[in-house]
Amino acid sequence: MSNTFGRLLRLTSWGESHGPAIGGVLDGCPAGIPLCERDMQKDLDRRKPGQSAISTQRKEPDEVKILSGVFDGKTTGAPVAFVIENREKDSAHYDAIKDIYRPGHADYTMDMKYGLRDYRGGGRTSARETAVRVAAGAVAKKILGGITIVGYTVQVGDVEIKKFDETEIEKNPVRAPDAEAAERMVKLIEKVRKEGDSIGGMVEVVAENVPAGLGAPVYGKLNADLAAAIMGINAIKGVEIGSGFKCVTMRGSQHNDPMESRGSNVRFKTNHAGGILGGISNGDLIVLRMAVKPTPSILREQDAINKNRDNVKVSVEGRHDPCICPRVVPVAEAMMALVLADHLLLQRSARI
Amino acid sequence: MSNTFGRLLRLTSWGESHGPAIGGVLDGCPAGIPLCERDMQKDLDRRKPGQSAISTQRKEPDEVKILSGVFDGKTTGAPVAFVIENREKDSAHYDAIKDIYRPGHADYTMDMKYGLRDYRGGGRTSARETAVRVAAGAVAKKILGGITIVGYTVQVGDVEIKKFDETEIEKNPVRAPDAEAAERMVKLIEKVRKEGDSIGGMVEVVAENVPAGLGAPVYGKLNADLAAAIMGINAIKGVEIGSGFKCVTMRGSQHNDPMESRGSNVRFKTNHAGGILGGISNGDLIVLRMAVKPTPSILREQDAINKNRDNVKVSVEGRHDPCICPRVVPVAEAMMALVLADHLLLQRSARI
Amino acid sequence: MSNTFGRLLRLTSWGESHGPAIGGVLDGCPAGIPLCERDMQKDLDRRKPGQSAISTQRKEPDEVKILSGVFDGKTTGAPVAFVIENREKDSAHYDAIKDIYRPGHADYTMDMKYGLRDYRGGGRTSARETAVRVAAGAVAKKILGGITIVGYTVQVGDVEIKKFDETEIEKNPVRAPDAEAAERMVKLIEKVRKEGDSIGGMVEVVAENVPAGLGAPVYGKLNADLAAAIMGINAIKGVEIGSGFKCVTMRGSQHNDPMESRGSNVRFKTNHAGGILGGISNGDLIVLRMAVKPTPSILREQDAINKNRDNVKVSVEGRHDPCICPRVVPVAEAMMALVLADHLLLQRSARI
Amino acid sequence: MSNTFGRLLRLTSWGESHGPAIGGVLDGCPAGIPLCERDMQKDLDRRKPGQSAISTQRKEPDEVKILSGVFDGKTTGAPVAFVIENREKDSAHYDAIKDIYRPGHADYTMDMKYGLRDYRGGGRTSARETAVRVAAGAVAKKILGGITIVGYTVQVGDVEIKKFDETEIEKNPVRAPDAEAAERMVKLIEKVRKEGDSIGGMVEVVAENVPAGLGAPVYGKLNADLAAAIMGINAIKGVEIGSGFKCVTMRGSQHNDPMESRGSNVRFKTNHAGGILGGISNGDLIVLRMAVKPTPSILREQDAINKNRDNVKVSVEGRHDPCICPRVVPVAEAMMALVLADHLLLQRSARI
Repeated sequence: MSNTFGRLLRLTSWGESHGPAIGGVLDGCPAGIPLCERDMQKDLDRRKPGQSAISTQRKEPDEVKILSGVFDGKTTGAPVAFVIENREKDSAHYDAIKDIYRPGHADYTMDMKYGLRDYRGGGRTSARETAVRVAAGAVAKKILGGITIVGYTVQVGDVEIKKFDETEIEKNPVRAPDAEAAERMVKLIEKVRKEGDSIGGMVEVVAENVPAGLGAPVYGKLNADLAAAIMGINAIKGVEIGSGFKCVTMRGSQHNDPMESRGSNVRFKTNHAGGILGGISNGDLIVLRMAVKPTPSILREQDAINKNRDNVKVSVEGRHDPCICPRVVPVAEAMMALVLADHLLLQRSARI
Repeated sequence: MSNTFGRLLRLTSWGESHGPAIGGVLDGCPAGIPLCERDMQKDLDRRKPGQSAISTQRKEPDEVKILSGVFDGKTTGAPVAFVIENREKDSAHYDAIKDIYRPGHADYTMDMKYGLRDYRGGGRTSARETAVRVAAGAVAKKILGGITIVGYTVQVGDVEIKKFDETEIEKNPVRAPDAEAAERMVKLIEKVRKEGDSIGGMVEVVAENVPAGLGAPVYGKLNADLAAAIMGINAIKGVEIGSGFKCVTMRGSQHNDPMESRGSNVRFKTNHAGGILGGISNGDLIVLRMAVKPTPSILREQDAINKNRDNVKVSVEGRHDPCICPRVVPVAEAMMALVLADHLLLQRSARI
Repeated sequence: MSNTFGRLLRLTSWGESHGPAIGGVLDGCPAGIPLCERDMQKDLDRRKPGQSAISTQRKEPDEVKILSGVFDGKTTGAPVAFVIENREKDSAHYDAIKDIYRPGHADYTMDMKYGLRDYRGGGRTSARETAVRVAAGAVAKKILGGITIVGYTVQVGDVEIKKFDETEIEKNPVRAPDAEAAERMVKLIEKVRKEGDSIGGMVEVVAENVPAGLGAPVYGKLNADLAAAIMGINAIKGVEIGSGFKCVTMRGSQHNDPMESRGSNVRFKTNHAGGILGGISNGDLIVLRMAVKPTPSILREQDAINKNRDNVKVSVEGRHDPCICPRVVPVAEAMMALVLADHLLLQRSARI
Repeated sequence: MSNTFGRLLRLTSWGESHGPAIGGVLDGCPAGIPLCERDMQKDLDRRKPGQSAISTQRKEPDEVKILSGVFDGKTTGAPVAFVIENREKDSAHYDAIKDIYRPGHADYTMDMKYGLRDYRGGGRTSARETAVRVAAGAVAKKILGGITIVGYTVQVGDVEIKKFDETEIEKNPVRAPDAEAAERMVKLIEKVRKEGDSIGGMVEVVAENVPAGLGAPVYGKLNADLAAAIMGINAIKGVEIGSGFKCVTMRGSQHNDPMESRGSNVRFKTNHAGGILGGISNGDLIVLRMAVKPTPSILREQDAINKNRDNVKVSVEGRHDPCICPRVVPVAEAMMALVLADHLLLQRSARI
């Protein structure tokens, strides 16, 4: 239950950071979709560690192998199972902190939940698990047809983007759609890292060409499913749709998006709704923003406790991302793709 | 699927705004809980329309009747079914707008999804459905034991609270924990209403005494379930936990909550986590904030289209709340109660 | 969870035998289906008590009211909620046995599960709940299009049918497709009742025009879902499909159904498969048979125990069916309709 | 959905007969259970092909590897993922029949469902998938505590067992609890095989020490879940509980199991209920019987059609079991273990 995501299109994920491998099973995938490992690898390469100087230097090739569900280059309707080996899993330096509850991490809460935990690299709580989401998201994207999803960093610390140029996103290591802002973001991240610290940021993800009618009006709201999908990504502290928290100071007369009709086309003059009205897509861009907390693994000494409830000092060595935003981007895209693909399939039974 | 909420404790909701009644079925409720209609009514009375001058003047007593699942004053393990009659359902003035898609409403999206819709009072998309959540939440609260949940308005338009006095909350019509701010909020709401407009706001809801260990590290994260629960409430555009969007500009060394141990007690010196680490409760206060959009039903004339794709003008008459925050409060509490009660039951099978 | 049935088309049931009412919520029902209360009432009248001399004499009109999900005579995609009042609920004579565990009933097991129980008329364990299934099944039938479902009694005690004449089924009180056998069945039932006893029987239910392709090859097998649906009906002790238990003594060369092709038509020369191969419908008749135990409520004195673990004698007075087969028929049809309609909707996402 | 089994304890299965591997993910497994690969291997060895002269001669070591969910010899609460490589997968002789729909197989129905299929060795419809169930069932057994489950063959063709000696079961290749009958069963199977044919049989599986109170009274009935679990095993055509189809000719006065109390012990004098009353376990032995059809893969020439709808003759070469009963035994035990373990966990939330 806790390791399965989705309703009709269901991803079951498994694997720990320092076990032999991680992997997933995507069930409910319709038959007849052209699919190969390259489809997944392309997105995995965007998420994998060690892509740039501002990322962790852990070297993981993150090569995916498909083990079932594909025959003659097409999905068969059987569950698509895939596996990614853990190669560089030097667990030695985790021995030192195996009894310590690192601040900002799930060490303490895992022990409180299960009474024991796999402390090597965070085990199941490691963000390494998000590779599974990215691989599955690549399959989901194939179900989406003409819908496109693009994610990017809009803020790191107090550096915000000033313009939006989609072609810039994959050209800079922070994945910002603004080359100049990206440069300042990189500088800030490098400064923070030298100080043994980390920094937060904001990521936006947008879906285009989503047909009107996806979602449901009460508990299966498209925005509720998207909120869960995004909030379920490691390090996310907030999620907003369309106007988001800006709506707090707005009037209804400003916030309501006026409609107009041109021939058979329906258009919204503004998009405070963020593409979703009453839990159902309205055909406009779906726009989500998420707050990404600063990575909790920092070199600076912090107050912590250990298993015996002693007060201790801890400083987390190892190879960590000082700002996780650029690697959140492909994960957020994948989660959005999984939710939209699921709702596309659900929509097939909305009418007799 | 779309009308059922929860995993082990599952609420199935039904009913339209102008049908004979609305109601719910709460399944998975453990046997042996003392329960009567007054338990539900108390919270329903806090949500019902017409409580104050700044609320809608629709008069609905919202009297709940329990139809099953309780015997000799205790739950039996059978589903708790309850019903709330719709009394004041004057649908006449909806005829005028039955073919018009009101801006900010789900009229257009419902038609796009289902090909037809019950236009009377918004049908299934009406916020009237939240009464069902409140009634079910009252049962959930009985499962929570020592956990307490309190919600309140922290902002209306640009008026923010300056202090927190829990005893003030239920004394003013906006449910703000600051009497002076509440007064200014009420004035703002009255001004906005006179202008035929509406205004947004922010609500916070806090759970105390939640034991550490609730939730799960991957897809059943407590924060993800809470985010879905809150984002699924009508009019919500954003949700954040703990530091929320403030984390964007923070450093790891600021954001990580240092721990300390005093005897057998574990304490976090700050609570940027908002009571949840790695998807699992850490024993601290769980703090959620949500952005509430200005009510879309406004008297001002707006650009809209109708079913025939004609461009029309519409002004929504009827009895509407110019600011929905005070009525969101009990709904948010109920949704939080449902999620926490569900996770308390789930936690019973976390260890052998 | 325990009171919801189905995957995409989901029935949630509530209500006790002697509470104010029973009812159900059918979620996932596609929009646009013409539906009214008469559709449900027709089948409810076939299940209701007191239809004939060999049935219980409890008088329940079993009038159903639809409370949501239908507008202008069509389903809207909202959950279809309906309620059936309990009229004749004389609970007085249950006081005498409230502490006694009746043999063959769920009295003892309910107490062991929940620690308490609503003893009036069996509460939630009463077969009265099957009225909810019949009402929901009537909606499911409307999703089935050209698929028809017909059920009938094939055996009562040692009296078996000798021929199959569908037009006879609803003409005799046992619902047997053989007028002469029906007469002997009635006589046997009357004899058994006079002896203060009850008798078992067998019911068959057949679906025609089911398209090939419904179901799934592993855990969502159509036969597995049907088996659960049938075994979940009160009093059923066994279920078989196609050849059923006869396959035990058969050879592969006899049991395999040879296929032949005539133009574009595919035909199976025999139907030992019962219309399902590898969990998926093959286009042939789906044939299920179920063993119906003799009603446990009998006048004869039996050995029992009570709540205090005393050995006592009990004889169950009241109005009971000496053979429940004729009333199982519409329930089995309804359960089959729910499963097939669910799989028809699921099949919509089998291919891209 | 179609490849996941269970409610709280959930098995997701993947893999095709002639792909690189098969495997499973068991989610919801409580933390703290001692577990290693030997626990699974023991049962896998009882299911694997090539164990005796009357079984298929395909040689598969069926060695299982655990990839996640276990740390320091104990389950961690993370999903237990495991994989079994396919070693001997000579798919060459499947080319000959890739366009032919073998009678008694799912070839035709898979094509009708998905529009294409992996024809090598039956792909996903191969009984090879049951190895996954057996591996997961071994974990489930560890949750069962004192509950024991034993399965055995009670009939092959017309040869029935005459006595029950549990110690004999694993000593003979048919897994019959009667040495003498086993010998006659083996002879019959050998005769049938020489004739290029196959034969059906019956398997019984019994659970002891199941506490009273597992299950639910309406749709989550323990017997309904068990019926689905058993009917979902390849080749099963019928399932019965307790008296099963014998109840058809019984009277209530015979069928009701009288109770008696001895000190604090409650005893049923007979067990026609098969250990389940009203969908809930009563503390007595749970007894299930299942009809196993003759293996459809036979050497004899049969009438079939191909993809082009031509009438063809087919004779299925390869290595097949002429009677599958002995290999159904460990699978049936595993499915029963999964259901009972799931209900043990569910029962933890039955009372406040």
